[in-house]
Amino acid sequence: MAPTSETLTAERILEATEEVLRRHGPAKATVVDVARALGVSHGSVYRHFRTKAALREAVTKRWLDRSSEALAGIAAADRDPEDRLRDWARGLFEAKRRKAGDDPELFATYSVLVGENGTVVGDHLDDLTGQLTRIVRDGMAAGVFAAGDPATAAGAFFQATACFHDPCHAARWRRPGIDEEFEAVVELLVRGLRGSRRPV
Amino acid sequence: MAPTSETLTAERILEATEEVLRRHGPAKATVVDVARALGVSHGSVYRHFRTKAALREAVTKRWLDRSSEALAGIAAADRDPEDRLRDWARGLFEAKRRKAGDDPELFATYSVLVGENGTVVGDHLDDLTGQLTRIVRDGMAAGVFAAGDPATAAGAFFQATACFHDPCHAARWRRPGIDEEFEAVVELLVRGLRGSRRPV
Repeated sequence: MAPTSETLTAERILEATEEVLRRHGPAKATVVDVARALGVSHGSVYRHFRTKAALREAVTKRWLDRSSEALAGIAAADRDPEDRLRDWARGLFEAKRRKAGDDPELFATYSVLVGENGTVVGDHLDDLTGQLTRIVRDGMAAGVFAAGDPATAAGAFFQATACFHDPCHAARWRRPGIDEEFEAVVELLVRGLRGSRRPV
Repeated sequence: MAPTSETLTAERILEATEEVLRRHGPAKATVVDVARALGVSHGSVYRHFRTKAALREAVTKRWLDRSSEALAGIAAADRDPEDRLRDWARGLFEAKRRKAGDDPELFATYSVLVGENGTVVGDHLDDLTGQLTRIVRDGMAAGVFAAGDPATAAGAFFQATACFHDPCHAARWRRPGIDEEFEAVVELLVRGLRGSRRPV
């Protein structure tokens, strides 16, 4: 139990919520469990998050943001767009694989929460494809990638790498050969972005 | 109940098994249910399929083969490899979407069976990527696609289109815009196969 003398911040509540979810699972975790873990009344928790649903949504957003924040730096860097694209895709795969592998119970918990929180997940996916669009747009402007609609191309790139970031494929992320498969897919997509008209 | 005078063939047993699975679900369906539906003894069924597991495996294989047989014709046709590739990918997406949409209960049933029958599924995936490899190899030989290892390129193409054939993405196959997304992914991949060195 954490000392009650610390100021009760939203961040502290979210940390405790994650721990409670890990311990009890998403079906059983309650706001009372969270308050107990913090040594406060459940009313104190409700002053920060008005409903249990709002608390679950916030903790899901925090979990998803952890992946996208690191990637935002890669997307915004002043570097060769093709290198950024490869690093970004690799960064996303590594982050998801680490989450799935290091703490499978928490990953399973968040997979349930993600299914409940459509808006939060939609925002997260918009954020990620927005980052990708920025890289692709820079590449098109630099002439590294063929001209086209950056958002469409970025969306296609994101979908085409789903095997390496969508949790429904997580069981295969530790399989031998998966890194070579990842490289082959990214290579094919990068070549596609460079573009080529059909040889005449 | 089917008339018992008909010869009891493996195919008739598999048809009845599919119907029993649809009605009872994969958890409850038994060999006795199948025998009853055919109006025969369960011993007669066991003469064709030695165990319940063998019967479930055979019915899963039959279900998966239904998709791949139609595609085999596209892969082997004497036509432009790029057109064949597009038609093949579209054919696979359409077949999976039809299966998922027309009979969601049977699709869910087979999703369970597919999880049980690793070897059958592995053979099915080998069959599909083998078909793709044939198209890619033809395209490389014709100079339509850039030189490379056809099997690696075909495997990457298959993984990069998982959003449109892996059952874990089935919930999104009726979403508005999905056909445009499919086209954008295939376009990007086809360009990647045509290949291009980085512009200097």
